[in-house]
Amino acid sequence: MTEQPHLLTATSALHLLQIGALTVEAYVTALLSHIRTSEPTIKAWAHLNSDLVLSQARRLDQLPFSQRGPLFGLPIGIKDIIHTKHMPTSHSSPLFPSPPSTQDAPALLVLSNLSGLLLGKTATTEFAISTRGPPTTNPRNAAHTPGGSSSGSAAAVAAFHVPLAVGTQTGGSIIRPAAFTGVYGYKPTWGAVSLAGVSSVSPTCDTIGFFARSVADLELLATAYRIEDLEPVVETPLELKGARIVFCKTPVWEKAEKGTIDAFAKAKELLRARGAEVVDLELPAAFAEVGEWARTIHAGEGRASFLGYYLQDREKLDSVIREQVENVKGVSRAGLLAAYDGCAALRPVWDGIAGRFDAVVVPSVPGEAPEGLGYTGDASFCAIWTVLHAPALNVPGFVGEKGLPVGLTVVGGRCTDLRVLRAGKAIGEVFEADGGWKDRS
Amino acid sequence: MTEQPHLLTATSALHLLQIGALTVEAYVTALLSHIRTSEPTIKAWAHLNSDLVLSQARRLDQLPFSQRGPLFGLPIGIKDIIHTKHMPTSHSSPLFPSPPSTQDAPALLVLSNLSGLLLGKTATTEFAISTRGPPTTNPRNAAHTPGGSSSGSAAAVAAFHVPLAVGTQTGGSIIRPAAFTGVYGYKPTWGAVSLAGVSSVSPTCDTIGFFARSVADLELLATAYRIEDLEPVVETPLELKGARIVFCKTPVWEKAEKGTIDAFAKAKELLRARGAEVVDLELPAAFAEVGEWARTIHAGEGRASFLGYYLQDREKLDSVIREQVENVKGVSRAGLLAAYDGCAALRPVWDGIAGRFDAVVVPSVPGEAPEGLGYTGDASFCAIWTVLHAPALNVPGFVGEKGLPVGLTVVGGRCTDLRVLRAGKAIGEVFEADGGWKDRS
Repeated sequence: MTEQPHLLTATSALHLLQIGALTVEAYVTALLSHIRTSEPTIKAWAHLNSDLVLSQARRLDQLPFSQRGPLFGLPIGIKDIIHTKHMPTSHSSPLFPSPPSTQDAPALLVLSNLSGLLLGKTATTEFAISTRGPPTTNPRNAAHTPGGSSSGSAAAVAAFHVPLAVGTQTGGSIIRPAAFTGVYGYKPTWGAVSLAGVSSVSPTCDTIGFFARSVADLELLATAYRIEDLEPVVETPLELKGARIVFCKTPVWEKAEKGTIDAFAKAKELLRARGAEVVDLELPAAFAEVGEWARTIHAGEGRASFLGYYLQDREKLDSVIREQVENVKGVSRAGLLAAYDGCAALRPVWDGIAGRFDAVVVPSVPGEAPEGLGYTGDASFCAIWTVLHAPALNVPGFVGEKGLPVGLTVVGGRCTDLRVLRAGKAIGEVFEADGGWKDRS
Repeated sequence: MTEQPHLLTATSALHLLQIGALTVEAYVTALLSHIRTSEPTIKAWAHLNSDLVLSQARRLDQLPFSQRGPLFGLPIGIKDIIHTKHMPTSHSSPLFPSPPSTQDAPALLVLSNLSGLLLGKTATTEFAISTRGPPTTNPRNAAHTPGGSSSGSAAAVAAFHVPLAVGTQTGGSIIRPAAFTGVYGYKPTWGAVSLAGVSSVSPTCDTIGFFARSVADLELLATAYRIEDLEPVVETPLELKGARIVFCKTPVWEKAEKGTIDAFAKAKELLRARGAEVVDLELPAAFAEVGEWARTIHAGEGRASFLGYYLQDREKLDSVIREQVENVKGVSRAGLLAAYDGCAALRPVWDGIAGRFDAVVVPSVPGEAPEGLGYTGDASFCAIWTVLHAPALNVPGFVGEKGLPVGLTVVGGRCTDLRVLRAGKAIGEVFEADGGWKDRS
């Protein structure tokens, strides 16, 4: 052991666990010890039962080698809107008590049946739609939000509590907290992972995704979920020399702050220096409407998603949820259908555009994480790709004026997830090496 | 009381319950007594606890009049893939034990918070995707299937066990069993009712819907779920005289059997006799592909929906589920996207076509319910409208050669649910009066 176990990426830990150089019990013991030290500041966890974790670790250690799955012994944080059998699921809502569910959500059965270890439930904003923050702080600076709604999942990975965490994104709830906390965040193509047993916000946009500290770790999960591309992906790393990489400011570029503007410019420079052919892309005019369509779909679908809770006790719901049911935004059914059809028509258009390049780089967020924990930040740059059902990967590596991380997103056409990860791996190595962000944990 | 309570429609029962002429306890006592008599043959229920039902009825009876909601005291059957807090949810799967869930699914919170009574869980095919029948028999002839996957919900309403039941449709799982059992079945526009807490088959197609013995009963539920149309709907009944009613054989008409062919012809005749302007519609050629696209989407999305269960214990899954995960049909990601985009492009085309008429009538099913309980029937006529996200209503009233009911479907453009129900009410009165089907219960 050359490192403290909590600093290992999933891929590195997996290797040690598989060869028996590290037991699951020793691994989670190290993680729990580190968590005990930093959790009082980070507050990433909605539920974490050390005894349960240790007993599961010992059970995994007793598995014969032949029965150890491809995620053997990897501890995974689970966003607290995903139902778990052995842990409560609170949705960060005061509406209900939060006993354990009947069964793990199907998406979690994939992890546990491949010998992963569901370590605990990570803090979220209320029903993953409120932008009012949970108590979780940004591991890079506790005075700042880690972003939301997958606040705890991002913070737990950034703070070395776990190597992997599961989150969800309806607007920007994976990419944004990944960017704010300086980790990789991956939102697959819509539909790639089952959402059964997950609190629903907008069925058109809701997507399960993942946090990790390396792209290789995310590739482990993509394999676990049997995510496949339209076309087989070349297994060798993307060669940046000669690669066609397009930068797209998107129609909401006016929201970009200094951190993102600087990162965008520096990223181009770094990739050009590695021999990439860097070009700029302006999207066709119709894409300017996607952001508004996404807001219409969220509001329109939220009416149905939250009606039951609203009738149960509207006073216990965050105002953003109440306002969706009450249709404060005045979304008409005709407007909702127009948003559906507008997005649907642009999805193949976007796929075609993205397919012409080796990688597409876009902003992740306006800039560094806002100060304070009350507001988890703006999802404008992410929501476009969510509602277009496109795979997206936050790649960290840059730093803003306040010393907080800034990430950029590699995005692709639908069902080019592995291609996005492969491109993000090569690009991430450059950003991490020369982007200026230094992880000081 | 001029009738035995179990024969009441929801609307009639509600009136008596609201004025205090019938207590909820007396109502459910009558239902439970009738169920005890007929359930040994019908086998509609996966779970029904009389003590729980009676205690809930007494609790409702104690509600002050001012707190009685618009579904006060109405007993409702719940398909056993929808999570319930006080009753187990088995998904008709041998994979798990089936303890109660943490919470009622949000769609059920709507019912219970409007003072409805969740009576019990109704039998379904395995995870609502298998076409292998549960033991439920058709209340019109126990030698025949009631259809599936919402087998128990349809049978419970047809057998006068409950006035209302909740089901789901991914292909034809509401319309088909409604047609086979001779009741009204209503599948709303996709997205109208939350699917959280419901077992997922295909997120693009899955839709919660309802069974009842009158359209007025379904309108009660549409109001409860705050379903609204694109345009306000005229409150007066549809006047058939002069109404433009279009009959569409759909691209799968070759599947129609004598029962449906005869019903189709007779329906035209009956509506013409009432003064309706009856016309025939041939869909544009592109619609011929919708059925195949629906199958592609079911198979493609089933891979993710069932992966967790498959990894848990593939041997305990029905072969249709195993084959989805194993992608036996060889659905490519490119094929899936083509199916998504093809359907998405046709949705507004269909809305435009449907909007030109006062009502559109299509077949519900090939014909009468097949004999035997092993196979729940063909969804071809329904799957088109499901994947187009169109509201659909099975209207009973006809009878086939074997003496079993045959229904036809009134279908509309997206978000014209109330318009479809209004048309279905006027059309249903004609079919029920003169279509030839006589309910012999």
